[in-house]
Amino acid sequence: MAAYKLLLLPGDGIGPEISAEAEKVLAVLNEAGVASFEVERGLVGGAAYDAHKQAISEDDMKRAHEADAVLLAAVGGPKWDGVPYDVRPEAGLLRLRKDLGLFANLRPAICYPALADASSLKREIVDGLDIMIVRELTGGVYFGEPKEITDLGNGQKRAVDTQVYETYEIERIGRVAFELARKRGNKVTSSEKSNVMKSGYLWREVITALHKREYADVTLEHMLADALGMQLVRWPKQFDVIVTDNLFGDMLSDEAAMLTGSLGMLPSASLGAADEKGKRHAMYEPCHGSAPDIAGKGIANPIAMIGSLGMALRYSFDLPKAADAIDAAIANVLAKGLRTADIKGDAPSTVSTKEMGDAIVAEL
Amino acid sequence: MAAYKLLLLPGDGIGPEISAEAEKVLAVLNEAGVASFEVERGLVGGAAYDAHKQAISEDDMKRAHEADAVLLAAVGGPKWDGVPYDVRPEAGLLRLRKDLGLFANLRPAICYPALADASSLKREIVDGLDIMIVRELTGGVYFGEPKEITDLGNGQKRAVDTQVYETYEIERIGRVAFELARKRGNKVTSSEKSNVMKSGYLWREVITALHKREYADVTLEHMLADALGMQLVRWPKQFDVIVTDNLFGDMLSDEAAMLTGSLGMLPSASLGAADEKGKRHAMYEPCHGSAPDIAGKGIANPIAMIGSLGMALRYSFDLPKAADAIDAAIANVLAKGLRTADIKGDAPSTVSTKEMGDAIVAEL
Ligand SMILES: CC(C)[C@H](C(=O)O)[C@@H](O)C(=O)O
Ligand SMILES: CC(C)[C@H](C(=O)O)[C@@H](O)C(=O)O
Repeated sequence: MAAYKLLLLPGDGIGPEISAEAEKVLAVLNEAGVASFEVERGLVGGAAYDAHKQAISEDDMKRAHEADAVLLAAVGGPKWDGVPYDVRPEAGLLRLRKDLGLFANLRPAICYPALADASSLKREIVDGLDIMIVRELTGGVYFGEPKEITDLGNGQKRAVDTQVYETYEIERIGRVAFELARKRGNKVTSSEKSNVMKSGYLWREVITALHKREYADVTLEHMLADALGMQLVRWPKQFDVIVTDNLFGDMLSDEAAMLTGSLGMLPSASLGAADEKGKRHAMYEPCHGSAPDIAGKGIANPIAMIGSLGMALRYSFDLPKAADAIDAAIANVLAKGLRTADIKGDAPSTVSTKEMGDAIVAEL
Repeated sequence: MAAYKLLLLPGDGIGPEISAEAEKVLAVLNEAGVASFEVERGLVGGAAYDAHKQAISEDDMKRAHEADAVLLAAVGGPKWDGVPYDVRPEAGLLRLRKDLGLFANLRPAICYPALADASSLKREIVDGLDIMIVRELTGGVYFGEPKEITDLGNGQKRAVDTQVYETYEIERIGRVAFELARKRGNKVTSSEKSNVMKSGYLWREVITALHKREYADVTLEHMLADALGMQLVRWPKQFDVIVTDNLFGDMLSDEAAMLTGSLGMLPSASLGAADEKGKRHAMYEPCHGSAPDIAGKGIANPIAMIGSLGMALRYSFDLPKAADAIDAAIANVLAKGLRTADIKGDAPSTVSTKEMGDAIVAEL
């Protein structure tokens, strides 16, 4: 039986609560002999800052490098609003992405039929929605240099961020999008602001050439990022796979997630390049944040976290059947009417984080 | 009677058609003796490129500087996809904004009750929505240097855009937002990505200090741009005035406009700083684009263009009563059931661009 090492980083806020439910699912997988998962635990974000004044320790970074996959819950919260910029909670997340080379962020936006009414959009607009957003995650304005604030005197400061993209970065994320599209609706929408940004201009050029050279069988369209943000609201079902840069991907994937009415439900995968042995770094995390306002109350929705584990089975461990079983278990508990507070809608009652986790385990 | 000079730039696509309707309204204002408007015409975008291989001529720039206000319809279209980057249609628009110093872009997102059902959002989410988005328009990644593509050899290129903000730029746009809020719901939401971008960090710092120093009577909240994009979908009525940078403002104002179901209806104002005599440059334009697919068919919606003229009366010519009359005329024709094709909804029939313009003129 294959043996894998997982690094679990519960992080902040509701992170520890939803992580506990994912661990239950892991225990079931171990018992069922699907694989042998060994789980290590580490600290990231505010939790890491509280322990050792860093957003993630060197020790935990080392374990992240060694693990077969990282499972991260969420970071951040008002408690750490005043900490120095370099050690703010988000810095831990950004370092994991960058140091592990996780350039491909896959964010599915799926509308569970049982939840279509939880969306602020009309049912017919979102019911059955199934989009995959492929976001570049290690480049762009998140990491470009210079990135600094200069004091100009006289009470004036000057802040600079730099958006940088090179051809190879655009090509490799484009490839991920085209490959995914082939297994789905065979359509890719590439998005940038090529009418304003040179990086957008290069982005469009590189994606167009890659398409012509290697993926002419896939339908490709280009859409400016502002227009895409509008079209997501107007008629999201026109999209299959969307590929875009780090910052636009941040905005557009959150917007898409909110459309579905299922924000607390959506997982994500962040993948690196495969090495010679076919091994690649990977991190899996919910799309939602650390929700400090409801932390510790036992009412958070664990589905995105459990779904993230499902994505790990699919993309890191080549266990598509086990991944399908998790997805089916989630769909089943929803169809049976189980609801956490965030997706209550017209439901007569809600269940706790633990009850939702137990119900999913029972389905499995 | 006050005499004013307007520069009308119809631009591309549906631009000339909707401009003709705005001219009818101007004629009515002249006849009624509201003021004496003299209209000059110029070229911008693809139309300017076709005439003299520039996105706007030096001559028209000079006239823009001299005019009391510029009315611009829309630029761009697939016809000019292949023209050199520096003379693409958008370059004309960007030059007007930059050279006239139009740093404050006001984009109202209003949901006309008569049109609430045209939105893809549920009626209760958008009915009566009234947000003002204040977008910084002459800074950020749109204009920062370096902005270039470098050939690295081996088929590799490197593209760079630079986001730059200085304290004074953030302060003056913040001031516009706080002043507007005082005349509306008295609340400002400031948006950036301070958790990732140094310019966002400075933005938050400057807005916070300005608020404390001069606008403590206004409610201020900060919201990360990705979160704001989500909250716009979830519950847009929580917002009053939103202030944000050039790029986030581009994305968020388009998203907000689409929410209302009234995209073809929304005007915008771009304002410069007042000089010693209280005079400032200003440009007014619809939020929508040039819609090349329906150009020349006589079916475009002229309301956003006429509404933009209304904003000119309000912000450049201090004619609030005339501006109110235009807004009321628009609301009336909508309440009477007149619909152009873009806002047809369940309406039994639609009217042409010309019929809509005539109906608004008749109301006046
Ligand atoms: C927490 C933050 C740094 C992060 C980002 O901006 O990438 C988050 O919004 C996300 O989308 O994962
Ligand atoms: C046409 C384009 C350059 C422009 C922008 O990006 O600012 C447009 O999208 C807008 O919002 O006015």
